[in-house]
Amino acid sequence: MIRVKFLPSDRTVAVPAGNTILQAAIEAGVPIEGVCGGNGLCGKCKVRLQMDNTKAEKGRLTPAERKFLAEDDIEAGWVLACQHPLFEDAVVFLRDLKDVHERKIGTADSEKVGLHESSIKKLHVVLKKPSLEDQCADWERLIDALPVGNIAFSRLAASSLPQTLRNGKFNVTAVLDDARLLAVEPGDTTARAFGLAIDIGTTTLAVYLIDLNQGIVLASGAATNPQNVFGADVISRIAYASSPDALRELQKIVVGGINGIIESLTEKTHINISEIYQVVVVGNTTMGHLFLGIDPSFLARAPFIPVFNKAVEVNAGELGLAALETSSVTLLPNVAGYVGSDTVGVMLAVGADRLEGVHLIVDIGTNGEIILVGKGRILTCSTAAGPAFEGAKIRHGMRAAEGAIERVSISSDVEAMTIGSGKPAGICGSGLVDALSEMVRTGIVEGSGRLLDRPERLASLPPALRQRLRTAGGQAEFVLVRGQDSADRSDIVITQKDIREVQLAKGAIMAGIRVLMREMKVGTEEIEQVLLAGAFGNYIGRASSLGIGLLPFVPIEKIKAIGNAAGKGAQMALLSAEERQRAFVLAQRTRHMELSTDKRFQEAFISSLAFDCNSQGKANL
Amino acid sequence: MIRVKFLPSDRTVAVPAGNTILQAAIEAGVPIEGVCGGNGLCGKCKVRLQMDNTKAEKGRLTPAERKFLAEDDIEAGWVLACQHPLFEDAVVFLRDLKDVHERKIGTADSEKVGLHESSIKKLHVVLKKPSLEDQCADWERLIDALPVGNIAFSRLAASSLPQTLRNGKFNVTAVLDDARLLAVEPGDTTARAFGLAIDIGTTTLAVYLIDLNQGIVLASGAATNPQNVFGADVISRIAYASSPDALRELQKIVVGGINGIIESLTEKTHINISEIYQVVVVGNTTMGHLFLGIDPSFLARAPFIPVFNKAVEVNAGELGLAALETSSVTLLPNVAGYVGSDTVGVMLAVGADRLEGVHLIVDIGTNGEIILVGKGRILTCSTAAGPAFEGAKIRHGMRAAEGAIERVSISSDVEAMTIGSGKPAGICGSGLVDALSEMVRTGIVEGSGRLLDRPERLASLPPALRQRLRTAGGQAEFVLVRGQDSADRSDIVITQKDIREVQLAKGAIMAGIRVLMREMKVGTEEIEQVLLAGAFGNYIGRASSLGIGLLPFVPIEKIKAIGNAAGKGAQMALLSAEERQRAFVLAQRTRHMELSTDKRFQEAFISSLAFDCNSQGKANL
Repeated sequence: MIRVKFLPSDRTVAVPAGNTILQAAIEAGVPIEGVCGGNGLCGKCKVRLQMDNTKAEKGRLTPAERKFLAEDDIEAGWVLACQHPLFEDAVVFLRDLKDVHERKIGTADSEKVGLHESSIKKLHVVLKKPSLEDQCADWERLIDALPVGNIAFSRLAASSLPQTLRNGKFNVTAVLDDARLLAVEPGDTTARAFGLAIDIGTTTLAVYLIDLNQGIVLASGAATNPQNVFGADVISRIAYASSPDALRELQKIVVGGINGIIESLTEKTHINISEIYQVVVVGNTTMGHLFLGIDPSFLARAPFIPVFNKAVEVNAGELGLAALETSSVTLLPNVAGYVGSDTVGVMLAVGADRLEGVHLIVDIGTNGEIILVGKGRILTCSTAAGPAFEGAKIRHGMRAAEGAIERVSISSDVEAMTIGSGKPAGICGSGLVDALSEMVRTGIVEGSGRLLDRPERLASLPPALRQRLRTAGGQAEFVLVRGQDSADRSDIVITQKDIREVQLAKGAIMAGIRVLMREMKVGTEEIEQVLLAGAFGNYIGRASSLGIGLLPFVPIEKIKAIGNAAGKGAQMALLSAEERQRAFVLAQRTRHMELSTDKRFQEAFISSLAFDCNSQGKANL
Repeated sequence: MIRVKFLPSDRTVAVPAGNTILQAAIEAGVPIEGVCGGNGLCGKCKVRLQMDNTKAEKGRLTPAERKFLAEDDIEAGWVLACQHPLFEDAVVFLRDLKDVHERKIGTADSEKVGLHESSIKKLHVVLKKPSLEDQCADWERLIDALPVGNIAFSRLAASSLPQTLRNGKFNVTAVLDDARLLAVEPGDTTARAFGLAIDIGTTTLAVYLIDLNQGIVLASGAATNPQNVFGADVISRIAYASSPDALRELQKIVVGGINGIIESLTEKTHINISEIYQVVVVGNTTMGHLFLGIDPSFLARAPFIPVFNKAVEVNAGELGLAALETSSVTLLPNVAGYVGSDTVGVMLAVGADRLEGVHLIVDIGTNGEIILVGKGRILTCSTAAGPAFEGAKIRHGMRAAEGAIERVSISSDVEAMTIGSGKPAGICGSGLVDALSEMVRTGIVEGSGRLLDRPERLASLPPALRQRLRTAGGQAEFVLVRGQDSADRSDIVITQKDIREVQLAKGAIMAGIRVLMREMKVGTEEIEQVLLAGAFGNYIGRASSLGIGLLPFVPIEKIKAIGNAAGKGAQMALLSAEERQRAFVLAQRTRHMELSTDKRFQEAFISSLAFDCNSQGKANL
């Protein structure tokens, strides 16, 4: 065994010699950025190794490390955590990416979720004290005093009952979820009742702590889904979960991540974990399976069959979730293998069954889920957009953390806006879309996606821009930020390959939209609104998204960001049994279009790849 | 830490120096006889210590050890496990009491329990295989094919579903308990369905493995309740369970004991634990609480309030019971704090609600539960008979294991029959009742309970008997077996104190019977039958029980042993939802008489103490 110390978290772990740094980090519970599942494909898991013998370490570098690391990096000790095995005690420095997810959740604290009727009822009762003449058992004494019929016995609620009744001098509050007795508390605690709405994204976990009496969000928080060390996309996670042990591990890891957020929220608001009586969860179908520890294997291969689609309800205790052990955890229903309860949450949030006219709702995460509502129908599909908009597979891509370029405009030269006060370190999704839209508009990228190299066109570019175009390693690239202005002193570029990745991603989404529009027989001009759900939708430039042909060419004022609508839907379902029922009806009513077998999708995809597809594409509709 | 090795089981454990041998034995999971909860009051936990320094060990003997151990014993290294602390590594020899409980369960294997309609249904279905055109989720695909509505989602059943469906090529058997899906098995397994009926006695655990299809007992087994190291009676167990950790420990220990029996039964019958789909449990109220890990504290003090009385249902997995994790475990309802579901089981077995005329049912265990049925009423009470009939608090008392005297007759001299082929080692309950009945009949014990010492009466005794009467340590005693004939070469005696213990025990039971008869206003002559339930009832001599005044003086042919009726009731409830419902109605209909506040009980107790109480007592009825 060797000892590996991680800084700045200062955690040390012992692992067998030959383990990679990533394996050691997982063992130590230290989150490492990385999106390819440890396959050396993304280059995101850069860490700096304190080297005693630089030469020996350099001799061990894999081709993947040589590909992603500049010579300077290598000299400074940077390696890829997933590629680099350790054979002796080591100290590893992690890049400290300050998380800015907090600002991205989109629901202000104390926001009223709407009218509600929670299924949680707290009933304060004063019981007659037992005596030799009245030997009624504790459970029956309490149950008989409650104005609710058919309350089933609960071992957990009963186990603390005798002490609670006597501590409270038989003056107690019963916590009921319909006819389930969740807990009994001494005294009158009816004023305090809390719940959680949780959105489990492939990349981001979002948790909302809600006051069930007032129907408001008390606090909210987010964190990176710690499963991401096992791969950025659902397919890598499913592949990893193929053994029962690994499945259990993924389940524990995501619950651990959620619990961390819950604990920080409850601490901030002075709420006890045991005062959380109800939880509603949304997430894509794979995340739902993994959260419950249910084998998602068959989601990954045709015919893409989930284990469950309808809403499921389990106990918090069963999952190890930080809430009252007996509280119910409801997963909203899925529509299909790749249209999960998060999409149903979005439908709930926008009232998809009550919208008049034609509405397009797009939720771009690691997958792109598309909902088209109109003509009395709800159509949906999922496109494997991939994590390009989350910074993966993009040379200098990164998530929307401090140092990420989030806005780009190009005129005589490039202007880039960075998150936080520091120098730029990479580019996040909204920055990437802006950059490409501007590059297309200014002709640096042709409609076909090719970086400009025709001399006659190059000549017409402003000189500053022209100098940013170059070829490196046999590939054309555009320098967005020069080394002297960047955080780690190396150029931040957009490569021809990066552009192709974005084309594939946006082409898939646009093609999905087109298939739904064709199925419903509606044209672009009939669309009343385009609603962008999700964190990305909140930050993407509306003009830029039209500029790269990510969305049908509607007037810009028809495009609206609606924030984390999936989370909002979860909140609504938490606060109202009626909304939970409505989620079920929405999932039932929704027609899912399986794109992998739809011939129209192939055609639409090809015609959606070009950046100017909206002008070309109209002919196809 | 010191190391303690137990023989003959050859288990070694490390414990802190200063721990008693009993503490080490509990830690090692080695069962040690003992009935006073480690308080040095019963002298039953005799073990032999391999001593390096006999003199030092002798210097450490406590007054309790000096009281219970003869000088020879002490020289040979015998100590009391609960009294004797260890300060260095030690080897401890346990007495090897060969268990004969097996023969005492009373239900023959393969016995038909009766007509039944189990709530467990196995349904064989062949499902349509999924395809891209039919992407229905696994759970919904299965549920939709079952002719049962409203099946709730089960995480446990769902987690193995995808593999099971595919291993079975979508040809599977669903296991349902009403509308709960317990499991899915590949292929057609409808022929195999098993359940357990369990009787948790304070002293003995009995388990019946039942074929739910055929309604027969396939195998049964019993073992000493391993909680007995924490005390022979429920009060000592409740006292021990006063901390949450101790409560959890007692829960785990009793489940462990039950699991041991289940495993031996399933091995013998080639059944998998996961083929056990349903469990019904009976036991006294305290045992029920401890089995569920629910605090029984308030049962031990006035007004003796249980946490629950109505039937409760939990999952096997929650308790750690060796059965399919999702299978339901139903505890039949209790009547009151000291009239548990075992008594309701007895009522079910005898059909208490269908009996014509007046019937008295007595279940003598550590407590004596009495049921009087007649005049359209069911009355019940519990008397703290104490464990005298189980050998506790009796100088040479022991349980009905090999070497126990079980039959005694006295004419010109004493004749004693022993269980097994060896020499007598002590006396068990039925032997004790025989001995006392014979001693009363022959005048060795007077009606008042006093051992004969009046010279004029002594003279009329046969000489052999006269020689057996003596005084030792200031106390009169009767030598039942002389040292030369006994297993450990010391005399087996019945002391004056032993006789008083039996008087208290039988007096309490008889007094309880009298209170119920008085409440119902029936005389002895109106009793049609006296049914003796429980292991003890199976073995007690009917004439002897009348001889010592344990039962009202009915013609002997009216007395019938009915074996483990509580276990039989559990079997019936297992095999029929209707019987389960009937158990509930029986518990509701039964009137419990709390003796501790009943003035009639005090009177009846005093007039029931004498051995010839039936002749005296009639006046009191």
